[in-house]
Amino acid sequence: MAKKTTVSVVGCGLIGASWAALFLRAGHDVRAWDPDPQSLGGFRDRVATPLAQLEQIGASTAAQGVLHLSADLADALEGARLVQENAPENVPLKQDLYARIEALVAQDVIIASSTSAHPWSHLSVGMKHPDRLITAHPFNPPHLVPLVEIFGTDDAVVAWAEAFYSGIGSAPVTLKKEAVGHIANRLASALWREAVHIVAEGIADVDAVDKALVNGPGLRWSVLGAHMAYHLGGGAGGMAGYLDHLGASQEKRWASLGNPSLTPDVREKLVNGVMAEAAGRSIAELEAERDAALIALAKQRLKSD
Amino acid sequence: MAKKTTVSVVGCGLIGASWAALFLRAGHDVRAWDPDPQSLGGFRDRVATPLAQLEQIGASTAAQGVLHLSADLADALEGARLVQENAPENVPLKQDLYARIEALVAQDVIIASSTSAHPWSHLSVGMKHPDRLITAHPFNPPHLVPLVEIFGTDDAVVAWAEAFYSGIGSAPVTLKKEAVGHIANRLASALWREAVHIVAEGIADVDAVDKALVNGPGLRWSVLGAHMAYHLGGGAGGMAGYLDHLGASQEKRWASLGNPSLTPDVREKLVNGVMAEAAGRSIAELEAERDAALIALAKQRLKSD
Repeated sequence: MAKKTTVSVVGCGLIGASWAALFLRAGHDVRAWDPDPQSLGGFRDRVATPLAQLEQIGASTAAQGVLHLSADLADALEGARLVQENAPENVPLKQDLYARIEALVAQDVIIASSTSAHPWSHLSVGMKHPDRLITAHPFNPPHLVPLVEIFGTDDAVVAWAEAFYSGIGSAPVTLKKEAVGHIANRLASALWREAVHIVAEGIADVDAVDKALVNGPGLRWSVLGAHMAYHLGGGAGGMAGYLDHLGASQEKRWASLGNPSLTPDVREKLVNGVMAEAAGRSIAELEAERDAALIALAKQRLKSD
Repeated sequence: MAKKTTVSVVGCGLIGASWAALFLRAGHDVRAWDPDPQSLGGFRDRVATPLAQLEQIGASTAAQGVLHLSADLADALEGARLVQENAPENVPLKQDLYARIEALVAQDVIIASSTSAHPWSHLSVGMKHPDRLITAHPFNPPHLVPLVEIFGTDDAVVAWAEAFYSGIGSAPVTLKKEAVGHIANRLASALWREAVHIVAEGIADVDAVDKALVNGPGLRWSVLGAHMAYHLGGGAGGMAGYLDHLGASQEKRWASLGNPSLTPDVREKLVNGVMAEAAGRSIAELEAERDAALIALAKQRLKSD
């Protein structure tokens, strides 16, 4: 169990709730703030679901931290070592928020942005101490998917963040250079482009593509990375052998991949296809199924640790 | 438990061994043939490992089928309803094999090629009854990853194959139109292109990319397809809402994805990176770790069925 820390959660939507549940479950105290009284008012309820799911997994032996809600930013920042910012994806809004936070906290307080859309170099503009800012992007739903993608410019700040997120059971991955979409959303976008192409070209329907992914590469990528898969695909020669024998045909394959546009026709195929796959299940029901499956996997991971 | 069937396994390498284990474990009899006496001679041993792994999962209640090895093709085809062909990825060689098989079997015998590289339309050239040929591509390692990608031109043949592969615990996915790389390898290739780009550009190291995938999108894709993920990403509006609000930014993201070449410099980064990730573990050790993780997941799946 890591040292008990106080974390400010700034922005009380679903991502903020997921983060708060992870922090509390690991024994950290959380001080939450949102400019919208309604968001703030509903926060304790929104935290309850992910918290119950984490309890179902049974991960922590720490005494649960205390959740404090505050409509006053200064009060919400009191004693915090880390500020997890989950404001809307609006750069000026975030920059303004950082300025307000910087005016209220000590110099060693770290600000971590959950942003999926904006790079560090845009967000940090105008900060008094930009080195205290990191991007720390979780993957949805954050309390059930361990990945946190980190980028920052101060090695000590990044090292502290890596240790902190590891301590709450997450899997931090640090980028050497910032990139729009970090790693995971770039990979997801690249895969989806081809998945859309396959549907657009009439090779397979939406549900067939999803079934192939879930029962094939997706399953394998949950235990083995893409690079490592090609290392094993190279036989005794590993990655070097793979590249020697099949590098050229892989480049040929890349050249043959699709480059679809989201035309009205493609849009219709995707919407109808996903409705057929959902087979009457609502978004909430589909999310509950996803969460149940991820919870089962998290239990499994915990058991094999 | 499906009806007991006799399956000829033609080509006794690792893929053939994996198939044989699945067939035997489901209670089917297997008659195996390979032109190379050494391959044939070692086959019983090569089948033992996947068979033991399937027993570890505990999937079947059927009495295990009988494995018969034969150096005589006619004998190996005796009584078979399905021929699973796992010959080298060489079109003329496969075509020659199909001609020999067709001369020996009744008209209703189905030939299923495990090919990952060649489309049905190339393989079927010159066949007397091309409609009996399907491609049935497994995903490595076939006995631990359920996906089988099917393409054929005769609906009844395809329906029989879907039922048969479902019956052995696999997850058949049928393509409406053939495509080089079927679905899964096209998706894997698209993802890997971006994974290579991220390494080539110095955004993250090989092991960081793999860690991000395994703990992020890979984990989620093991329970939720890529199309369905965007449906859930659209909130209450689902896929339609997603495309309305974020379709344009997704197209912009696609335009920003990388298009790497496997230059000597990139090659060196990949080889060194994967060696660092392997951290001294041999290919065999890495495969054993992969298999252990996939076995744990298969047990988990079985439990939640």
